[in-house]
This record gives sequence, C-alpha cells and structure tokens, in this order.
Amino acid sequence: MSLVEVLFGRKLANREFGRRQIGAFEGVPAMGLDGLGSSAYGPEAALTILVPLGSASFAFIGWIMGPILALLMILFLSYWQTVRAYPNNGGAYIVAKENLGANASLLAATALMVDYILSVAVGISAGVGALVSAVPILHSYILPLCLGILALITVANLRGTLDAGRLFALPTYLFVASFVAILAIGIVKSVMAGGHPHPVIAPTQMPKATETASLWLLLRAFASGCTAMTGVEAVSNGMSAFREPRVAHGHRTLSAIVGILGVLLAGIAYLAVTYKIGAMDQTQAGYRSVLSQLAGAVIGNGVFYYVAIGSLLCILALSANTSFVDFPRLCRMVAQDGFLPKPFAIAGRRLVFSVGIIYLAATSGLLLLVFAGITDRLIPLFAIGAFTTFTISQTGMIVHWRRALGQAGGKTAANRSHFWINAIGATTTGLALVVIVIAKFAEGAWITILVIPCVIVLLKLIRSYYDELESQVRDSKPLELHGSGPPIVLVATENWNKLTDKALGLALNLSPDVIAVHLSHLSGPEVEERGRDLRAQWHTDVENPAKDAGYAPPRLVILPAQHRNIHEPILKYARELRAKFGDRSIAVLIPEVAKQHWYQSILHGFRAYRLRSALLRDADPWLTVIELPWHMGERR
Amino acid sequence: MSLVEVLFGRKLANREFGRRQIGAFEGVPAMGLDGLGSSAYGPEAALTILVPLGSASFAFIGWIMGPILALLMILFLSYWQTVRAYPNNGGAYIVAKENLGANASLLAATALMVDYILSVAVGISAGVGALVSAVPILHSYILPLCLGILALITVANLRGTLDAGRLFALPTYLFVASFVAILAIGIVKSVMAGGHPHPVIAPTQMPKATETASLWLLLRAFASGCTAMTGVEAVSNGMSAFREPRVAHGHRTLSAIVGILGVLLAGIAYLAVTYKIGAMDQTQAGYRSVLSQLAGAVIGNGVFYYVAIGSLLCILALSANTSFVDFPRLCRMVAQDGFLPKPFAIAGRRLVFSVGIIYLAATSGLLLLVFAGITDRLIPLFAIGAFTTFTISQTGMIVHWRRALGQAGGKTAANRSHFWINAIGATTTGLALVVIVIAKFAEGAWITILVIPCVIVLLKLIRSYYDELESQVRDSKPLELHGSGPPIVLVATENWNKLTDKALGLALNLSPDVIAVHLSHLSGPEVEERGRDLRAQWHTDVENPAKDAGYAPPRLVILPAQHRNIHEPILKYARELRAKFGDRSIAVLIPEVAKQHWYQSILHGFRAYRLRSALLRDADPWLTVIELPWHMGERR
Repeated sequence: MSLVEVLFGRKLANREFGRRQIGAFEGVPAMGLDGLGSSAYGPEAALTILVPLGSASFAFIGWIMGPILALLMILFLSYWQTVRAYPNNGGAYIVAKENLGANASLLAATALMVDYILSVAVGISAGVGALVSAVPILHSYILPLCLGILALITVANLRGTLDAGRLFALPTYLFVASFVAILAIGIVKSVMAGGHPHPVIAPTQMPKATETASLWLLLRAFASGCTAMTGVEAVSNGMSAFREPRVAHGHRTLSAIVGILGVLLAGIAYLAVTYKIGAMDQTQAGYRSVLSQLAGAVIGNGVFYYVAIGSLLCILALSANTSFVDFPRLCRMVAQDGFLPKPFAIAGRRLVFSVGIIYLAATSGLLLLVFAGITDRLIPLFAIGAFTTFTISQTGMIVHWRRALGQAGGKTAANRSHFWINAIGATTTGLALVVIVIAKFAEGAWITILVIPCVIVLLKLIRSYYDELESQVRDSKPLELHGSGPPIVLVATENWNKLTDKALGLALNLSPDVIAVHLSHLSGPEVEERGRDLRAQWHTDVENPAKDAGYAPPRLVILPAQHRNIHEPILKYARELRAKFGDRSIAVLIPEVAKQHWYQSILHGFRAYRLRSALLRDADPWLTVIELPWHMGERR
Repeated sequence: MSLVEVLFGRKLANREFGRRQIGAFEGVPAMGLDGLGSSAYGPEAALTILVPLGSASFAFIGWIMGPILALLMILFLSYWQTVRAYPNNGGAYIVAKENLGANASLLAATALMVDYILSVAVGISAGVGALVSAVPILHSYILPLCLGILALITVANLRGTLDAGRLFALPTYLFVASFVAILAIGIVKSVMAGGHPHPVIAPTQMPKATETASLWLLLRAFASGCTAMTGVEAVSNGMSAFREPRVAHGHRTLSAIVGILGVLLAGIAYLAVTYKIGAMDQTQAGYRSVLSQLAGAVIGNGVFYYVAIGSLLCILALSANTSFVDFPRLCRMVAQDGFLPKPFAIAGRRLVFSVGIIYLAATSGLLLLVFAGITDRLIPLFAIGAFTTFTISQTGMIVHWRRALGQAGGKTAANRSHFWINAIGATTTGLALVVIVIAKFAEGAWITILVIPCVIVLLKLIRSYYDELESQVRDSKPLELHGSGPPIVLVATENWNKLTDKALGLALNLSPDVIAVHLSHLSGPEVEERGRDLRAQWHTDVENPAKDAGYAPPRLVILPAQHRNIHEPILKYARELRAKFGDRSIAVLIPEVAKQHWYQSILHGFRAYRLRSALLRDADPWLTVIELPWHMGERR
C-alpha cells in the first residue's frame, strides 16, 4: 500500500458511486457544521453591538432574536420548498440559472464561492482562537495550528464525503447533546427561580450605558446577529451527495440542522436575559465568550463544562468542512457550464471533485496566512456572500412559483403560499443584506464587494475561451490526407550510451532521415567538452553499422547551449531544417530514463520533461515530440 | 518583459559568468553577514550563562572572551592558510576529501548543510524577534514576517550573488559604522572616566548571585560564546564566487570580516565590564538585549540609537544570506561527486545553482513553520555543525601540512608553523565541540546529532544509484539494429475533432498499422455516452478517405475508463496487442492543445501530461509516446 493510499484510501471505480452517497445521519455533520457553528458567533455578534446600552440591553435581546428566529423559519420553509422543487441540486446557482438567467446565476455562484472560502478561514481561525484562549501556551502556534487543521480537513475530504461525515459525527452530536442539555438545565433553573436564577459562576458585570437605544443600533445588532444563519443553504447545495430517496434525506437533514440551530439560538437568547450575560471585548485580557459564560453560569466549571467547550472548539474548527462538501460540487456545475476550467468537473480517485477541494484549501490557506489566522480581521468580509445567495435564490423561487401560477393546475392555493413565503424571504434577506453592507463596508466588506465582480469577469473570460476553442476545433469534414511522408527525426543526445542506441534504433525504423543532435555546455560554463570524442565514435559505432544493415546512415550535429537550455538550439535547428526542406514535418525524439520510482524524478531532474514542454509550447505546428523510455535493468 | 524576468532578471549566457563574480566590497555583505550577525547573539549567550554569578560575573568576562578572541585569531590564521592552499574552493568538504577521504568529507558536507539550513532559520527568526520586540503591534505576524523575509532573500539570490551582495551592502556597512562608532565613544568615555563611566541610560541591575564560579560554568559560558564564531568559514567555502585575483579578494574579505568581528567582540566585552551590563531573561517582560542596553548606556535613546538598532535588525534577518551564497555551491560540489541529485549541479537562468537555493528556502521555511519562528527553540540545534566543520577542516589541514613536511622543500619552517596553527585550532575547536554537545544535548542538540548520520546514509544511497545507472547505461559496443519495422501506432482520442484529424494524418505517415482508441466514462459516472455516434462517423469520415488516399484504413476501438484514468485501459490494450504481434513495438500518439499561454495549463488540465508520464513510468520498454501539439488558430 503506497503513502497515497494510506492517506487518501484506495481508488474507487465509477460503479461504486451509489455506495458513496450519504443519509441524514452523515448529512448533519457533513453539511450542518457551518450552520450549527454559527450559533457560537451569531448571538455574540449581536450582543456585542448592544454593549453600549449597558444593562438596558437585556430588554432588547428579544427584539433582535425574535426577527432572527422568524427569518430562520422563513429560510427553513423556503429551502424546504427548494429541496423538493430541485431534488438534484437546489443550490442558488441552479435556481438562478433556471429562473433568472446566466448573469444572476454567476453572481450567485461567485457570492457562494467567496463565502465558502471565507467560511473555511473564519471557522478554522475561530476554533483555533478559542483553543488558544483556553490553552495560552499554544499562543505562538496560531498559524501552524490553523494550517494543520486545514490540512486535516482537506485530506479527510479528499478521501470522500462519506468518510468526512462519519469522522465528524462524534464531535457534532457531542456538541448538540452538551448544549441542548445545558440550555435545558438553565431553562428549568430559570423557571424554578421565577426568571431570576442564581448563576454557579457569575457572568461578567455589564458596563455602564453610554448610548440609548436607536433604530440604527437595533438594525446593526440584527444585521450582526444574522451571521447566525450562514450555512443554512448548505443542504440545498449538497443535494447530489444524498442517496435515494434524496428529497426525504434532504428534508430530514435540513429539519435537523435548522431545528437544532433554532433551539440553540432561542435558548441562548432566553438564558442571556435571565442570567444577564453580555458580550465582552475580545481584545481585552480575561475575555470569555458568551457561550463560555453561559455554560459556566448554568453548570459551573466541572468536567461537563470542559466537554461542552471542547466539543464547541471542534465544531468551530470543523465547520469549515461544510464548505469542503459544497464548494467542489458548485465548482463542478459551473465548470460543466464552461465558466470554470474543465478539471473542476472531473471526479478524482475517490469520486470527489479533487481539484475543487485542493483549490479551496489553497485559497483559504492563503487567506489564513495573509490575515495571520486572526478571526476579527476576517469577519467583516463574511456573510455578504451568504445573504446575496439567500436573496438571489429566493428571488429565483419567486419567479419559479409565478411561472407555476401562470400555468393551469390544481395547486394554485399551495403555489400562492409558496410564492408569498419566498417573497417575504427575499425581501427580508435583501434588507438584511443592505444593512450588513452599510454597517460593515468600511471594516472590510468593500473587499468582498470588489472581489465579486472581478470573479464574474474572470468566469466569463474562461467561458469565452472555451467557446472560441470549441468553434476552432469543431470538425465536420472528412479526413484529409497529405502524402508528405514520414517526418525528419532529430534524436536529442546528451551522452553516447544505451539510451542513444535505443533511440537511434527506433528513429531509423520511423524515418529515412535521422539526425542526432548533441548539445554542449549544458551544465554551465565550467564543464569541459566531449564533442570531439563523440564524433570519432559516431563514425565507427553508428554510421558503419547503419550502412551495413541497409539504413541511410544518421548524421551527427553538435550545437552549443549558451543559455544552458536544451530547447532553444534544437528549435532553431529544426526551423532551419524546415526552411530547407519545405513541407516535411519534424519529430524530436527524446530518450530518457523511465521514472519507475518517485525518487528517480529527483535524481534525474526534469530535463526531458522541460524539453518536451518547451518544444510543444514554442514550436510550430509541424513539430512533434517522441519520448522513448529506457528502464533500469532493461536488456539491450 | 515577463513576470519571471521582472522578479529574477534576464537570463544570463555562459560567457557572462566572469562578469558575475564579486570582489571584497560585495564579499563582506554576501559572505560576512552570518559572522557579523553572530556578534549580536554570541556575547549575549555567554553572559546569560554567567547570570547566576550576579555582579561577580563581570570579573569573569575577560576569562571567557580572551580565549574566544584567541580562538577567533587561530581560526583566522587557519583559514588564511586554507584560502591560499585551496584558492578555488577551500571549504571543509574539499579539504576533507583531499586529505581525509570520502567519509570525512561527507561528514563535513552534512554538518555544513545542516548548519546552513539552521543558520537561515535562526537568522531570520532572530531578526524578526528583535523587530517584534521593538514594534509589539506586529507580534501576531511573526511567522508571516519570517516567511516573507525568507521569500525576499530567496528571490534576491535567484537573481544572483552579485545583486545580493550589492543589495545588502547598505545595511551591512551601516551596522558596522554604527557599532564601531558606539564602541569607540564608549571606550573613550570609559577611559576618560577611569574605567567607571556614567551611563546615559542605566543598564539593568544584576540579580543577586545564586552560584559561585565553577570550571564547568565557565566552560559552558565559553561554549555558548563560541556561537559568535559561526560563519567565519563562509569565505573559504565561497571562494569560487570571487573574481580574479581570487586569493587576494578572499584574503581581503576574510580579514575584513574577522577584523570587524574581533573589534566588535572585544569592544562589547570591555564595555560590558565598564558599564556593568548583564544579560536579561528573554521570556520576561521588559527584556532588552545586551547590544540594546550597551547602545543606550553609551549614546542614549536618540535617532542614532534607532539607526544602530535598525541596522542590527537588518543584519540579523539578512545573515541568512550567507547560507544562500554557500549552500548551493556546496551542494553543487557534492552533486558533481554523485552524492546529491544532478540538478543541484546545474547552473540556472541567472548562473546560480537555483535548485540548491530553492531547496534551502524550502527546508528552512519548513523549520520556521515547525518551530513557529521562535529563535529560542532553534538555537540548541545550531553551532554543532559549524564546530564539526572547523574541526574536520583543520584536521584535514594538519594532514596537508604533514604531507608537505614529508616532501623535500625549502619551506620546512613555514610549514611547521602552519602545521602547529592548525593542530592548535583543531584541538581547541574539537574541545569546544565536545563541550557544546554535552551542554546542549538534552535541549535539542540530539536532533542535529541524529540527523547528520541519516543524511550521510542518504548521500551514499544516492551515489550508489548513480553508480548502478552508470554501469548499466555504459555502452562500448557498436549500434545493433533489428529490422522490426515501424511500431503499431495507437491514437488516443477524447472527441472527434481537428486534433484527431491531425493525429491520424501523422500516424498514417509513420506506420501502416494505426488504431484509434476512444475512452468512455472519463469524467465520472454521470457523463453519458458518445461512442455510437463516433463509430458511424468513423466509417464515413476516416476509413473511406484513408482507403481512397491509398493508406490501410485505421481501426477504432472504444474502451471504458472505469477508474476515470486514461492510461490503465490504453496500457492493457497495448499489452494485448504486444502479446498478439510478438516483437512489434507500440507507440501511443497523444494529440493535445499546445499550451502557448500559462492559463491554458489551467484551462485544459494535465490529462495529456499525466497520460504521458503514466505510460512512460508503467509501460514496458517496447512502448514509446508521441505528443502532437495543436495550436489555437492553426489552419487545417
């Protein structure tokens, strides 16, 4: 078993595709981590905005969390409908393409891609940030830890979604069980104490009020709290990962994710009021997150506390996984439409779209490197993509239902309610998007707003390249043959050895015109010459035996390689030959040691490969490249 | 001008090699930064060991620094002799190879390589550490800063040593001027004040003594202080970078480096005594380095102070550059002897040994990543290599002089003194090495001691591969030709288009036996079939025209690609053909879109390349690969 197989598992055949699909049990860890993880930072982001109100802020938590829960409900209903209407892939890209046209679909795809990449960086850096707060000795390792977790998630996903879903099930369900239990205990205590429970460990005291409540402040708090909803769209995007019956598995997964998220958000909001928990400033020493204060207040500082916080850390770090499931699938669809390079659409050795996975890992790794793995710097760029997607997707669904209403049919009442659900959803998420953009613009949202149109232009350029290629390469005429005869064969030699022997044997069987080209000065200016010996040997060891065997004797040409590269002198010589012999095509024959082991690439370098690539790139269409392997241990 | 040219400069021809060599002015920045930079951490390391003695330590500074200066003098004389005896390359590798044999030379080479890699990581992390202490806001960027500086130095060196020497001249000479001036002012003040000058800014108070002086403590302080000597060997290793007269330029550079280093070390030691400056604990808040305390005590906290400290930071960060000059040259020599892969011996586009530079950057970058850019964790691994090298090099010189003494000649007296200088040097550095190994073993020196023999084994394995290859590939017999005729040509097709057309045209001119192989299911399980259409089209558009033109009509074969890779079914089919047709050789013809622009590699993927590589790797010796480019815009 090779290292690749140990890391990534055995190669899978096409027929195994069905067995690799998942159900709801694996669906929640595979697609829900992003949504569930946002319960950790969504409420906290809203409470942070409310801090200037002091202890008066607790009166407003309900005003913020109520609309957020209502919006979550609307999104749930909307995606329930979308999953049924688009059972193969109900992502915003497909919905927009079918209902709003190519431009809207590209906007949706770009917004999603940007958000997926950010989601990976934010999730991992938030998890590592929390871990480092708990274990300060790791502080200088923030970036290596981020990159290590990224590598782990990447490898798990290159193995396949099924394995990733199973691998992440334990921390996911541990997190859900812990926090649902903590919330239940807290609610029971609160109700028993008449709404004024006594905290086991007191949460921090709220600072004095510095502002009074304004509509703008409440809107900003609402907009920040909306980050709790990122990730809800994951199920609709990832439908093709489910096994049959797809819609049922999708509905079950969506219900589980939204249900748990709703319970968590409502419970956190209620307990924040009864226990009087406020957000703290993350840059100050002694910072404790809202969920950490809440768990401490309800159950104290025992083993259970550490289990719960530990599972939360895992969830945050692994929430990146949701993007790893959906991003490659999205890229594949866009690539199939010709807007992304074709390799994004090719299933890899484990039947996942490896190029998309690797691309996601590389870009989010770069983001982590540029922002040094600090969550705060990444957050303002985030959530714009998600709300753009929500809005486009639901706008598309509005068109979908209006079209259904226009057609004759018995389901008019049902379709009318579908229509209104999506109309309300599109309006609300659209408004939230406007608020988010305005509130976060100067802090970094402008980067996202700048990147999205650039990516759209790039996607269109890619498509226009493929369109041009397709029109050039299309061929409807029958084969036309020119009797130009075999090409002139140039044999590239570095030394006189068995490789040259074998190459000359092949060349003489391919063409009557064979010329061996020896390059001098390849290794640099200080290496001495072997040309003269070679010429003498050529006469006795090549020309004479070739004549004896009835072949035209091959010629030897020695060219200097002043810039130490092989392809320029060969190409120059080939062009001279071409000019001399009119329409003859020319083949360059490169003998090389076959690289049967990985270390042979290192030991022999890539000279043969570089020569091949340079000739294929720079040469004119009449030139072709022949590579002849010579194996260690090969008999003459 | 391409991006590559902007970054790395235009490609240089072999004949420009002479003009790229350097003199002493560029030699000091190019080769002396490692040596000069160690004046910042060498004395500090010694003073740190003396801290438990409290204010009594000042009495011992002379006892430590005296032998270190004496040893530096011995090393200077020794390398002066070596540079003259080995004017082309007097590195420990060559000296050991000529005088002590292959094993000693490999030990020297390995010790040097390990030390060069560590030196890059230590230099950069020390510079960034100092910068971050001065500007605490950058603290979370330690690792990105380290990697950024590494990238900068790598690019500068890929441009060439000449450019690097010029680029780094300003900070080098600024550092030398600043600190020589500070030391001079301090010495004048000390002498005027009768040895008890009044500091402008008071250095830290020494803590109370917790130990009394023991021989072991003094030996440890001496061993730690010896780190001040790392880098002195650089000139002898880098001789080939000098222009003629080489020995004169080498002697001048060596004198300048050792002279400046000696002045700095002596001045620092003297002022540490008169101003009563001790080392502080780097992990404690308010830490100030010895040089920072010294500069503050002599000239206060003005502009000059910041210029001096700023140039010191540059020196530390750029001290990595010394390794970038010498490491690739060393690797090249080792590769020319067959102990490292051949690409290490090939001059790159700018006449530097690019593979060595890139390898050094990659390994030291990995070290920085693993140790998170923290100097303290790297230091214990360091200096063992340097002192191993000193000892081997001088032992080699002892043998050299003994041989010279054995021969008849008039210079017996001179050679005898040479002999004794090296004998004293070898003994002293050998003793220092033993002390360093014992004192640092548990802190990390064991890693270095473990790595060195592993690398030596690897070098010998590489050599044995080349020996085996050489013996197999050698060819002294004349060319033998078998009249096996042209190969069967398999044309790999994905679609029916102009590429296939062109490929068939070439194939029919090469061989009477042409078979087109179409692979189905390449993109994954969900892509539908085009096989049937293709077969019908084949008959009318290929077979008939080929017959009409007098060629044997090519056949079409459709193979399923169950694992989505192209090479396994083609190889299987080729093996069946081979079994059927005995000794016919087989060629696989791959038509592909020529990648004239970088983005075409991304847009077309690497399928043709991967097919070629897999066939060349896995196939039997009777198989050859023909690649035919098709250019965008090419006429039929």
